Amino acid sequence: MPNTPTHNECVPDTDRERRIGFAEVIFCPGKTDEQLRHIATSLFAAHQNVLATRCTPEQFAVMRAVDERLQYNAAARLAFLHEDRRVLGRGTIAIVSAGSTDVPVAEEAAITAEVMGNAVKRYYDIGVAGIHRLMSRLPDLEDAEVVIAVAGMEGALPSVVGGLISRPVIAVPTSIGYGANLQGITALLAMLSSCAPGITVVNIDNGFGAGFAASRMNRN
Amino acid sequence: MPNTPTHNECVPDTDRERRIGFAEVIFCPGKTDEQLRHIATSLFAAHQNVLATRCTPEQFAVMRAVDERLQYNAAARLAFLHEDRRVLGRGTIAIVSAGSTDVPVAEEAAITAEVMGNAVKRYYDIGVAGIHRLMSRLPDLEDAEVVIAVAGMEGALPSVVGGLISRPVIAVPTSIGYGANLQGITALLAMLSSCAPGITVVNIDNGFGAGFAASRMNRN
Amino acid sequence: MPNTPTHNECVPDTDRERRIGFAEVIFCPGKTDEQLRHIATSLFAAHQNVLATRCTPEQFAVMRAVDERLQYNAAARLAFLHEDRRVLGRGTIAIVSAGSTDVPVAEEAAITAEVMGNAVKRYYDIGVAGIHRLMSRLPDLEDAEVVIAVAGMEGALPSVVGGLISRPVIAVPTSIGYGANLQGITALLAMLSSCAPGITVVNIDNGFGAGFAASRMNRN
Amino acid sequence: MPNTPTHNECVPDTDRERRIGFAEVIFCPGKTDEQLRHIATSLFAAHQNVLATRCTPEQFAVMRAVDERLQYNAAARLAFLHEDRRVLGRGTIAIVSAGSTDVPVAEEAAITAEVMGNAVKRYYDIGVAGIHRLMSRLPDLEDAEVVIAVAGMEGALPSVVGGLISRPVIAVPTSIGYGANLQGITALLAMLSSCAPGITVVNIDNGFGAGFAASRMNRN
Amino acid sequence: MPNTPTHNECVPDTDRERRIGFAEVIFCPGKTDEQLRHIATSLFAAHQNVLATRCTPEQFAVMRAVDERLQYNAAARLAFLHEDRRVLGRGTIAIVSAGSTDVPVAEEAAITAEVMGNAVKRYYDIGVAGIHRLMSRLPDLEDAEVVIAVAGMEGALPSVVGGLISRPVIAVPTSIGYGANLQGITALLAMLSSCAPGITVVNIDNGFGAGFAASRMNRN
Amino acid sequence: MPNTPTHNECVPDTDRERRIGFAEVIFCPGKTDEQLRHIATSLFAAHQNVLATRCTPEQFAVMRAVDERLQYNAAARLAFLHEDRRVLGRGTIAIVSAGSTDVPVAEEAAITAEVMGNAVKRYYDIGVAGIHRLMSRLPDLEDAEVVIAVAGMEGALPSVVGGLISRPVIAVPTSIGYGANLQGITALLAMLSSCAPGITVVNIDNGFGAGFAASRMNRN
Amino acid sequence: MPNTPTHNECVPDTDRERRIGFAEVIFCPGKTDEQLRHIATSLFAAHQNVLATRCTPEQFAVMRAVDERLQYNAAARLAFLHEDRRVLGRGTIAIVSAGSTDVPVAEEAAITAEVMGNAVKRYYDIGVAGIHRLMSRLPDLEDAEVVIAVAGMEGALPSVVGGLISRPVIAVPTSIGYGANLQGITALLAMLSSCAPGITVVNIDNGFGAGFAASRMNRN
Amino acid sequence: MPNTPTHNECVPDTDRERRIGFAEVIFCPGKTDEQLRHIATSLFAAHQNVLATRCTPEQFAVMRAVDERLQYNAAARLAFLHEDRRVLGRGTIAIVSAGSTDVPVAEEAAITAEVMGNAVKRYYDIGVAGIHRLMSRLPDLEDAEVVIAVAGMEGALPSVVGGLISRPVIAVPTSIGYGANLQGITALLAMLSSCAPGITVVNIDNGFGAGFAASRMNRN
Ligand SMILES: Nc1ncnc2c1ncn2[C@@H]1O[C@H](COP(=O)(O)O)[C@@H](O)[C@H]1O
Ligand SMILES: Nc1ncnc2c1ncn2[C@@H]1O[C@H](COP(=O)(O)O)[C@@H](O)[C@H]1O
Ligand SMILES: Nc1ncnc2c1ncn2[C@@H]1O[C@H](COP(=O)(O)O)[C@@H](O)[C@H]1O
Ligand SMILES: Nc1ncnc2c1ncn2[C@@H]1O[C@H](COP(=O)(O)O)[C@@H](O)[C@H]1O
Ligand SMILES: [Mg+2]
Ligand SMILES: [Mg+2]
Ligand SMILES: [Mg+2]
Ligand SMILES: [Mg+2]
Ligand SMILES: [Mg+2]
Ligand SMILES: [Mg+2]
Ligand SMILES: [Mg+2]
Ligand SMILES: [Mg+2]
Repeated sequence: MPNTPTHNECVPDTDRERRIGFAEVIFCPGKTDEQLRHIATSLFAAHQNVLATRCTPEQFAVMRAVDERLQYNAAARLAFLHEDRRVLGRGTIAIVSAGSTDVPVAEEAAITAEVMGNAVKRYYDIGVAGIHRLMSRLPDLEDAEVVIAVAGMEGALPSVVGGLISRPVIAVPTSIGYGANLQGITALLAMLSSCAPGITVVNIDNGFGAGFAASRMNRN
Repeated sequence: MPNTPTHNECVPDTDRERRIGFAEVIFCPGKTDEQLRHIATSLFAAHQNVLATRCTPEQFAVMRAVDERLQYNAAARLAFLHEDRRVLGRGTIAIVSAGSTDVPVAEEAAITAEVMGNAVKRYYDIGVAGIHRLMSRLPDLEDAEVVIAVAGMEGALPSVVGGLISRPVIAVPTSIGYGANLQGITALLAMLSSCAPGITVVNIDNGFGAGFAASRMNRN
Repeated sequence: MPNTPTHNECVPDTDRERRIGFAEVIFCPGKTDEQLRHIATSLFAAHQNVLATRCTPEQFAVMRAVDERLQYNAAARLAFLHEDRRVLGRGTIAIVSAGSTDVPVAEEAAITAEVMGNAVKRYYDIGVAGIHRLMSRLPDLEDAEVVIAVAGMEGALPSVVGGLISRPVIAVPTSIGYGANLQGITALLAMLSSCAPGITVVNIDNGFGAGFAASRMNRN
Repeated sequence: MPNTPTHNECVPDTDRERRIGFAEVIFCPGKTDEQLRHIATSLFAAHQNVLATRCTPEQFAVMRAVDERLQYNAAARLAFLHEDRRVLGRGTIAIVSAGSTDVPVAEEAAITAEVMGNAVKRYYDIGVAGIHRLMSRLPDLEDAEVVIAVAGMEGALPSVVGGLISRPVIAVPTSIGYGANLQGITALLAMLSSCAPGITVVNIDNGFGAGFAASRMNRN
Repeated sequence: MPNTPTHNECVPDTDRERRIGFAEVIFCPGKTDEQLRHIATSLFAAHQNVLATRCTPEQFAVMRAVDERLQYNAAARLAFLHEDRRVLGRGTIAIVSAGSTDVPVAEEAAITAEVMGNAVKRYYDIGVAGIHRLMSRLPDLEDAEVVIAVAGMEGALPSVVGGLISRPVIAVPTSIGYGANLQGITALLAMLSSCAPGITVVNIDNGFGAGFAASRMNRN
Repeated sequence: MPNTPTHNECVPDTDRERRIGFAEVIFCPGKTDEQLRHIATSLFAAHQNVLATRCTPEQFAVMRAVDERLQYNAAARLAFLHEDRRVLGRGTIAIVSAGSTDVPVAEEAAITAEVMGNAVKRYYDIGVAGIHRLMSRLPDLEDAEVVIAVAGMEGALPSVVGGLISRPVIAVPTSIGYGANLQGITALLAMLSSCAPGITVVNIDNGFGAGFAASRMNRN
Repeated sequence: MPNTPTHNECVPDTDRERRIGFAEVIFCPGKTDEQLRHIATSLFAAHQNVLATRCTPEQFAVMRAVDERLQYNAAARLAFLHEDRRVLGRGTIAIVSAGSTDVPVAEEAAITAEVMGNAVKRYYDIGVAGIHRLMSRLPDLEDAEVVIAVAGMEGALPSVVGGLISRPVIAVPTSIGYGANLQGITALLAMLSSCAPGITVVNIDNGFGAGFAASRMNRN
Repeated sequence: MPNTPTHNECVPDTDRERRIGFAEVIFCPGKTDEQLRHIATSLFAAHQNVLATRCTPEQFAVMRAVDERLQYNAAARLAFLHEDRRVLGRGTIAIVSAGSTDVPVAEEAAITAEVMGNAVKRYYDIGVAGIHRLMSRLPDLEDAEVVIAVAGMEGALPSVVGGLISRPVIAVPTSIGYGANLQGITALLAMLSSCAPGITVVNIDNGFGAGFAASRMNRN
């Protein structure tokens, strides 16, 4: 009966942790409370660490009622279980942001990487309009195993970083900006067109994807 | 009779030098030989310095036949009369390019500014993937009255320059790049979205416009 | 701990006034009250004149609590400290708008230029659908050192101005319009494609950028 | 048999002249010689005046072999039979172009209108970068029954014209320009966003459509 | 003083009725109450018929307080004075809409034309998915002097109309639709690409522009 | 009188069921309560099964007051009369969704197909990030007469399905996603560019269109 | 060794006929002669009917040398083996084109459907600018099992067809047109936005996809 | 003198190998023979391994004249010196392509990675329209340290790969396709919108960037 959707609407990918190293991450937009409760119940039982992205405070409350260990970062809209706190990666993941308004996306990347078992260091608000701020952080960045560079507007930061260090650089465009920035499309296209060689890019505002990708790269 | 277009197709703006400081510049694409000859004849007679942009070698030959003082820069596709060599501007116009492939556009800006009576200095191939190259030129840029920054791909160079100097910075996106560069649209949008304050932008590959704008700014 | 972001999220560019002539301007969107208070405290202490752009009334209230000298222009969404009222520029900056609905962006440019030490004159609502209104202002525009031309819809005003005067013309597209105007993209692209030579362009609705650029051009 | 397409590929709309006032116009791109010969044969027999648009010199030759009265304007890529030379419209159609490079599109409009029985006057190369050129033509434009305004680059001309006269103004964007002009898309969008009221627009480089529309408006 | 904008923000084009046949029309979005009151006061005193487009109910109330003869059509968001009720045009303006959801835009065109002194006939909801509805109205359309065809979604209606009648056809795309309709851009581009010859087009949802254009065409 | 629109605004296509097999479907956005009541009254009287798409809860209430047999699926925004419950199609229509957030669009397709007389089977949340979920459903899909594949984000699911089965595959892009997903445009373009041969596509979020198309294909 | 690519560059999908009803179709663009020869050899041996799309005359010659039974349709750029001439489908596939310039795409659809075992009927050049041409073919279209409607420019034809018949309608946009047609994007988006319910769409100029899809729908 | 550009047009980034692990790579488009000879001479002297991308056969010949050890892969448009053949990376880089037409881009990635000191394995033509081809390669992919997935058209391959393995996946969109593929933009956007978590993306046809990024990830 179409008016009473049942739970077989959700087919959790229970095998995902074995295959790709982390359990299925909950993408919250558009999910009903019932769906969230259903997914949360099965995920929280099966895994020590869990992530739910783009989660509203209301959705967080629904899932927190299932398990009160669940934490929340409001700016990053991330809900997460972080019970297994072992650090597994080869080295440190450095997260650089261009502006202070890019911090929510940078935090989504940072927490994602932490919950997936990585050591993370944050270097925020050091964008190219005041290039000395980045330069003074160069030794820190050279020490990292992977660098995530988060920037909105013209998205120039990853190009400069990519020309300075030899480790993987993951560029994250944000939707910070207006007009010709086209909700982040410009930063995205700029990063893809970078003159610094061997930089890779994730979707606009996709801190989660960057953190996950960095974790893949940092794995033993 | 539609098959025999006559010269009243062209209404040269004879008053333009008085109004805006330089005679009407010939935009060559699509012009017939007859039109070019007609315009050249009247312009060369009336002005000592003349510019013709996006000029093919064939079109140059047509106009050179009118007046053999006409010069040509093939890379920049500029034909020009540069008889009045007085330098009129307040200071120097510095032209910076990100890559060596951006040189044709940078030269279009440089020659335009020179023909309009400005002293020009060139600093090419010092883009952000090797940021030390730009840094070593900083004193030169600080000495200029106006800086033109030419870049393709992600177009990041003007942002860095704009954060380092206090004089006007004119950003020129080039169509150098491929894929997500979208024939220069990405560099254009990036420059418009720059986090460095008070940068202005001209059309893609519009070295001419940048040179002219710099000349407006450098005028006494 | 990700849930308690600390102030090292913000790395103010304390050296910016020395480099580019004016202290770092606060871009308000997305900033938390805590971030604004933190930045305002350090900026207001160090500088006599300060700008905060795209500032909501609520954000203004937060910063005003830090220093009650702070002023606000609601239409332009500008908060500003304007204590040092010396006029430093070479000449006058004229600001022209096409329609009366473009006034908020024009005012953002005007106040920015004033706070940065320039004399400003305003000529609003003189767009091309009634071209005589512009013509009657021509002597005023010819007297200015720099002209800022603000227009939405098809963005034709800067082309006409650029063909009439010899000083720098900064074109500012606004997002006024609908449908094919594409939130100002059309006015932006039109200005970049202008047939009037040597016009430069800033981002859509970027009155701040235009005012800052004009100030760079008007500096001694 | 798929390899031998027969003439029932073409179903000429023989009734069109009765319905809309002019016989079906041949759109040449992609048509084979055989198709052109077939269509030309039937059209030339049935009508005194005929148009074929976007016609290559080779395609013209093919059709001229059918009937040697056929004329050709190479710039406008128009082939036409203009045997019935009666002038039928209420008044004159004035055609204004911004630049001399817009002349081919303007000529396509002009010849279309002439072949459809209208008196046409041409005013070319009077664009907005030298606004006095247009102003000096104002009495001529006020006398026309319909004005077609052809412009590339930022496409500003029809806005100015539309604010000066009370008769219908048909705006024709051309693909003249580069970069941000986007092959005429910018001029098109600008004309659609015009602040001058009651202007209508046709497709990029569609001189034919403008001439036809003007003819509809000028009909008794 | 920037915080107290004065009325010289608005420069009404008092001469417009003489030039183009109707007084300046008020574009309401973004106008403050003070601006509206100021403009309304001067316009209502000088003209018998007045139009204000895209007017909110609140804005209507502000202007109605100036003069209670002002009328309002909420769907079309039009406020209007219609005191001079003489019919001046040569014939009738027929307005056709594809769907019933296109009616607000069609009404904006209809009332505009009426207030400008034209006789108007309405034929709504006769789009191409049920083509017989249009066919049964063909005699009515053939009787009109000008036809305005309003359609959203794929915007096919004007093509069919344009192939059936010989009078001017003004196509109005609406933003009705979703997804690939791109807020009316698709209908707009489709109408511009029409295979029916000599159709002209106005901006998306621009019923006002269509009504004004039709009035230009219908004038004696 | 423009202020009192009458019912001849709506011209229901009463003959549509005879022509295309189902009565005119009500497209609710923008319809007034009066219009809905009018259309509903005539449709409910003439047909046993009726559909109203993109219907808000408030609009549903208005129509339900006309006839209380009307049902509603809030997620799919569908109101429907489903009185004639005969199953008429040749076989089963299988509906596959990539994620659980795509379910509302999938349900719009499912209910549309059911109300039009088809047997429907649902297989939700079996997208390509966990490809085994799809593989385990292959026998079910091979049994269907038509498969509808609903997916957001990168829209890859229909390509995989289209390479596995021989029956018609209808791809439905959803607007689920963010950033580079461009409100579903990316999924749409991806499906149209599919390397799996002979897949067809409907508009973004157009579950209704997919259900109707499947019904056309499944008809005897 | 990178300079000598071997045949394991190509992994023919030998099982495809069993799964989806027809052998892998060769997509020719970018394929080297060696690759084509290799694929052709294995396909021609294993299957009686074979298709190669977007095949240049030179590529056809290469494959014809492998097997001289191979046929070619130059307009449709199709190479094909059509040895098994049994007709397998339930009914007839009707192919309608709007213009005569759309015939190459229509022929690609027609031959694809024929080679896949279907009876095909062609009705070309009956587009909406002369709607009576379509109306006179209505009985033929009502008799077909599936209708493919091919149109360029504004792509209106499938909307009218879809409102007239109850069988599946597959819309094929072509790249015929210019300017606002955007190489067929406009026709594509228009078809996706169609007001006629239950129409499905394939990629621009994808006659092959339409023919394959029709064959899926016509299968027993 | 503008007509004789000198070598200071090129400022080679001689320090790049120290900073990012590999010498500056020559981007050939638009470079003159003189520039290429100049750069080649200095690079070949200083480094054992060198890359020049998007190199035409003519440009290759120019550089080969400098040093005959230079090799060339015509499909990938890569010129390269590969003298230091030590394998330095932690593991193997697997390169997967969807179609055989994607091989040139895949080879650009493969050779780049090899020249940078990595062991590479190639698995070509195993795209999602025949998903079993990929499945049979799963053990090979699970063994790799990094996987590069190259695909055109809808770009679905990286999503499926990303859901199957835990190592880094670099997605490379190619411009293979037509129409809605938009020269690879669609594949690019689809990869960025992937539902498989933690995939990163490079520019369209940027095999070089993917090979370089993989090398960064595979470094010890
Ligand atoms: N195929 C390529 N795609 C993107 N960037 C490249 C490519 N080849 C070289 N580069 C980068 O482009 C820069 C060269 O720019 P240029 O100074 O114009 O030669 C180098 O720093 C390389 O990092
Ligand atoms: N969800 C939908 N998507 C696309 N078209 C629809 C939808 N619902 C109804 N329609 C069509 O839209 C037309 C109604 O338009 P209108 O006259 O504005 O109500 C009907 O003829 C239906 O075929
Ligand atoms: N923020 C995110 N961005 C992109 N993909 C995500 C995000 N969060 C979760 N996902 C992916 O989206 C899929 C969930 O889709 P669904 O079945 O609709 O819940 C999961 O398989 C995740 O891999
Ligand atoms: N004209 C076409 N349009 C779209 N897809 C096609 C076309 N021709 C062949 N194909 C598909 O493209 C795939 C071939 O890709 P490739 O491995 O690069 O040859 C085949 O699986 C066909 O299903
Ligand atoms: Mg900052
Ligand atoms: Mg370089
Ligand atoms: Mg005004
Ligand atoms: Mg001119
Ligand atoms: Mg309707
Ligand atoms: Mg799921
Ligand atoms: Mg035809
Ligand atoms: Mg293949």
